[in-house]
Amino acid sequence: MRAVDIIHKKRNGGSLTSEELSYLIRGYCHGDIPDYQMSAWAMAVFFRGMNARETADLTLAMAQSGDQVDLSAIQGIKVDKHSTGGVGDKTTLIVGPLVAACGIPVAKMSGKGLGHTGGTIDKLESIAGFQTELTKEQFFSQVNTNGLAVVGQSGNMTPADKKLYALRDVTATVESIPLIASSIMSKKIAAGADAIVLDVKTGSGAFMKTVDEAEVLAQAMVDIGTEVGRQTAALISDMDQPLGYAIGNALEVQEAIDTLHGRGPEDLTRLCVALSAHMVVLGGKADSLEEAELLLRDKLASGEALDKFRALVAAQGGNPAVADDPGLLPQAPVVIPVVAKQGGYVQRIDAEKLGLAAMVLGAGRATKDAAIDYAVGLTLRLKVGDRVHAGDTLAAVHARSDGDIASQVVSRILEAYTISDQEVSVSPLLLSVVTADGVKRLE
Amino acid sequence: MRAVDIIHKKRNGGSLTSEELSYLIRGYCHGDIPDYQMSAWAMAVFFRGMNARETADLTLAMAQSGDQVDLSAIQGIKVDKHSTGGVGDKTTLIVGPLVAACGIPVAKMSGKGLGHTGGTIDKLESIAGFQTELTKEQFFSQVNTNGLAVVGQSGNMTPADKKLYALRDVTATVESIPLIASSIMSKKIAAGADAIVLDVKTGSGAFMKTVDEAEVLAQAMVDIGTEVGRQTAALISDMDQPLGYAIGNALEVQEAIDTLHGRGPEDLTRLCVALSAHMVVLGGKADSLEEAELLLRDKLASGEALDKFRALVAAQGGNPAVADDPGLLPQAPVVIPVVAKQGGYVQRIDAEKLGLAAMVLGAGRATKDAAIDYAVGLTLRLKVGDRVHAGDTLAAVHARSDGDIASQVVSRILEAYTISDQEVSVSPLLLSVVTADGVKRLE
Repeated sequence: MRAVDIIHKKRNGGSLTSEELSYLIRGYCHGDIPDYQMSAWAMAVFFRGMNARETADLTLAMAQSGDQVDLSAIQGIKVDKHSTGGVGDKTTLIVGPLVAACGIPVAKMSGKGLGHTGGTIDKLESIAGFQTELTKEQFFSQVNTNGLAVVGQSGNMTPADKKLYALRDVTATVESIPLIASSIMSKKIAAGADAIVLDVKTGSGAFMKTVDEAEVLAQAMVDIGTEVGRQTAALISDMDQPLGYAIGNALEVQEAIDTLHGRGPEDLTRLCVALSAHMVVLGGKADSLEEAELLLRDKLASGEALDKFRALVAAQGGNPAVADDPGLLPQAPVVIPVVAKQGGYVQRIDAEKLGLAAMVLGAGRATKDAAIDYAVGLTLRLKVGDRVHAGDTLAAVHARSDGDIASQVVSRILEAYTISDQEVSVSPLLLSVVTADGVKRLE
Repeated sequence: MRAVDIIHKKRNGGSLTSEELSYLIRGYCHGDIPDYQMSAWAMAVFFRGMNARETADLTLAMAQSGDQVDLSAIQGIKVDKHSTGGVGDKTTLIVGPLVAACGIPVAKMSGKGLGHTGGTIDKLESIAGFQTELTKEQFFSQVNTNGLAVVGQSGNMTPADKKLYALRDVTATVESIPLIASSIMSKKIAAGADAIVLDVKTGSGAFMKTVDEAEVLAQAMVDIGTEVGRQTAALISDMDQPLGYAIGNALEVQEAIDTLHGRGPEDLTRLCVALSAHMVVLGGKADSLEEAELLLRDKLASGEALDKFRALVAAQGGNPAVADDPGLLPQAPVVIPVVAKQGGYVQRIDAEKLGLAAMVLGAGRATKDAAIDYAVGLTLRLKVGDRVHAGDTLAAVHARSDGDIASQVVSRILEAYTISDQEVSVSPLLLSVVTADGVKRLE
């Protein structure tokens, strides 16, 4: 077998066999196939696509390129969740305790964040004492005892994906649905869950700008899961503005706690319940999404979900009292209001701009080794559709000090808000559900 | 400017600017742009193509990547000829003296051959004493005095093309018309001629399998020449069987001499006169192709073309008596007839197979540093359309010895000939002429 023949076949529109794809990925990973052949192949895939079987074969080859987690020591159906990411996304902090409260084991491995704000691991580490490095035995035993554990990713997972992604990034071959889908799914499959729920974002703040595009990506990922025997469902949700009101690590933990108390923002609560409902159904704890939602609303109202959060914090070295006393979380010394200069309606909030503003404050990493300031970030007061008067507070900046950076961030926030004279209709949050049976649009 | 943005633009169907193409080629040549970006770009070009202006800009950037020859010290309009190559192609040995006899200066730089048989330089070096390394001053002065000189390519010509071609070869990006056209034309433009005549082959023995494909390639090359101010014309000719009857270095020199004597094979003579006619018109020595052909036929009949060949050999250190005494050329010790096993008509001769057979004998190089045996090769007796009886000689093998290699070559030749019961109509040799005005089909 020769790489050049495989590239040639794909270039001419052929379908690659399982052997050809695994030869390519193994050879690339071992350094036998050079970058210049992989980038030419990736460009051929950009133009020619891959069918569902090829995409699944590529995904499996990448999943098998490094460590694969064996979760069989944990009892029950393990259901994982993945979000395509977005500004202010703290769903894992809520969904984890919520589905654990329904009796579904949550064995979550999560990465450190690179970008606007930290990842789930960074957010949890804003709780003093919280440990995200557990041994495999500690991890499994905690899930079996408490139903829930969250650890940082360790070891050598999907090295082929890491290498290929870095190459695609510099060769204009990122925007290929089968390549995006296989990159995401290879990591989920290597992480060992039995079933997977995908939270696919669409809108100006997301990678997929339209619902149609998001549905195509979601279907590709669901098809991979189905093809390799992992039940998979995807929920497509709007990301035209940030999710919830908080952006920044400790601020997002606080908002997650509020949500587990049943007093969180409506959009965040709805999305978390909807994602959790899919996990509960796939985990075999309810027969329908409706039944699952009732169960989940009950777990929120009864405080059982919050109890799971407390147990998680206690088991991993933090003070569980944080669930009831926001003062235990790091607090920014300075809070500066951002005041509207004109009245009207909030027409648009540029999530990307707010994310960058939070990063400027220190909430996110611009480079892999940068330190994170857990306390800083933004809290929004008004969101799309809200009535605003000149002089109203739009948002607040939580900063380390009130120097140049803070005032630069205030300007960025003012730029991120578009205020219009006309009343604004808010677009729905939940757009479609994608399963092996196809796409179902929600109203 | 960033290479990834240039790849992205081409991937999305955009046209690259002259600055972008020159940034890409310069950066690649200097090692600032890595192979993996160039191969992704080449694949994007494979799918998206390039317009005439882009193709010309790429060609110029490659021509300017290394040494460029300045022929201004030579008087008159310098017309160069390029053939896309083929088995038994010895046209340069005939066309050079022929157009020089019409008063057109021929300052020919030629490469060593890699493949079936040697290149023009190897063929000339089969004449004892013939020197192909001249200083620039010797080269120019010989052209000014004799009207004709042939030297080996030296220096660092079109390094960008060499590097890019080697990359395309291993990334399945060879078969792109603008990339093929710019590769060929960059070398011709760097070689400094004022006008260029292209001999584009089509058929089973050529890279372009159909006339349509050959015309598209020819038009792309003619458009490049026109765009950069070098008058260019292309003649498309059939390569379904070898040109002439001789394959092998000294054997082809002999056939070229026969042709200059006016007793060469009809197909070879016709192609050489047709190519030369275009060169004579572009060189301003005739107003029409018809007028040029009359002049050329006269130069053959009068012996003036042969005189130019004698002068060339003498000037470059060989014995000009070779033009009249074939015995002065290297002779293979063994000549083995290949005898037809059945009667009928020659339906097809696989030129590729014969080329490989000649290489096996030692007439060509399999690797860059392999030595060539000037004496060995094949002479055909029968060509497509000829009547054949069982026991007739189809061809002869000129070998170093009559061992295993020679008998293997006999079998290969028998395989290369297809004999059928039915009378065969021979396809025409000259198919179309392509100029800046478009394609003109002949007959």
